[in-house]
Amino acid sequence: MRNIKLILSYDGTDFHGWQMQPGLRTVQETLENALAELTHERIRVNASGRTDTGVHAIGQVVNFRSETKLPADVLMRAINAHLPDDVVVRAAADMPDTFDANRDAKRKLYRYIIHDGPVPDLFMRRYCHHTRYRLDAAAMARAAACLRGQHDFRSFETEWPNRASSVRTITQLTIHRRDDWLWLDVEADGFLYNMVRAIVGTLINVGRSYWPETRVAEVLEARDRTQAGPTAPARGLFLMRVSYED
Amino acid sequence: MRNIKLILSYDGTDFHGWQMQPGLRTVQETLENALAELTHERIRVNASGRTDTGVHAIGQVVNFRSETKLPADVLMRAINAHLPDDVVVRAAADMPDTFDANRDAKRKLYRYIIHDGPVPDLFMRRYCHHTRYRLDAAAMARAAACLRGQHDFRSFETEWPNRASSVRTITQLTIHRRDDWLWLDVEADGFLYNMVRAIVGTLINVGRSYWPETRVAEVLEARDRTQAGPTAPARGLFLMRVSYED
Repeated sequence: MRNIKLILSYDGTDFHGWQMQPGLRTVQETLENALAELTHERIRVNASGRTDTGVHAIGQVVNFRSETKLPADVLMRAINAHLPDDVVVRAAADMPDTFDANRDAKRKLYRYIIHDGPVPDLFMRRYCHHTRYRLDAAAMARAAACLRGQHDFRSFETEWPNRASSVRTITQLTIHRRDDWLWLDVEADGFLYNMVRAIVGTLINVGRSYWPETRVAEVLEARDRTQAGPTAPARGLFLMRVSYED
Repeated sequence: MRNIKLILSYDGTDFHGWQMQPGLRTVQETLENALAELTHERIRVNASGRTDTGVHAIGQVVNFRSETKLPADVLMRAINAHLPDDVVVRAAADMPDTFDANRDAKRKLYRYIIHDGPVPDLFMRRYCHHTRYRLDAAAMARAAACLRGQHDFRSFETEWPNRASSVRTITQLTIHRRDDWLWLDVEADGFLYNMVRAIVGTLINVGRSYWPETRVAEVLEARDRTQAGPTAPARGLFLMRVSYED
């Protein structure tokens, strides 16, 4: 059996997230159906992690076992011919038998896109969070600095009470602005449920001067989800990249 | 009565074009409904011109008469509150009584966006034409040069037999490439039905080396729609700007 890795992009707008759920359109089911049509095998795909309803991916990674004889590049095009237009395979490769897209993921990079211009950009409406508050990106960046490194991120986890460790390490956290657009890039060795969106909701409260910059460190310290800002909308969030090597 | 000008953007994907048609969702009807809800007047809007099903606008211009007392900037926000999320008013202004968005339009600028990368960009799938042929943008630009200036563009008009003059003047026609993206900007004193899309379909045949560059001048000369290339898909076309002053 081959062990095949795919890199996927999808527009999360019309999916109920990644994971298979009876009666709901999910990315996992859509991909598995395409693979079944193509190979006539029953294939279960293993993703680097789930994404929630409405969250997008530029570089989701999955692996699966198959006996197909198609070369990887031909396989990629063949899968794409069986996929709807809101999910696409960007790369395919044969991997060593031991490769596991979930277990071997070392870091993930998410991007959150915010538009704070006076009028919503309707061509980007599915792919950003629009706010009418003008945000102070520099204040947000200063406030976010305390989140870098290894911390207990329980304050930014929606699941409560959580059952496992909520300690994670953020290796990168940057905020950029160009014109009316802000984007926050955050890379970590793993993410808690809704963690990026809770961080963004907290930083927006700083950026709109509703909270002082010092509040973010207090929220982190509190280990209490009720202290953080609201969960920012899914439409602004993109899984950009999954890294497998250190 | 005030004479109010609006600049509109819309995502044409889910509209049956600009013009009111019974039982179909059109931009005109959507805007007139929003104005009626807001002002309790029966308002008929007058656009610079129609756009077809699936064609987008960044800078469509309309004018209408109203007795509303709302200042223009407040009116803009109020209209937007009554519009669905695929159409937005970007500007509003009071105009002299004589201003007519259709009759007074001096030039229109359209942009057509083509993506020729190996994998479709799914986040742009509603807003570009994807082709798997790698296009020679320089050859397309050379071939397009003969279209600049005043010509009878009957070869690029879908309506047949047409009833009025098909002579128009193209004041600008440029083609740019960045990475896997091409965009064609064409400005003229007016456009025939499907003219930009027929020009694009013709130039794509040149860009993919299916036709020689010299073919475009022959097509123009022929004054026969069957000589031109296919009508390129609506999704790549944007009405960018309408100019009212020379």
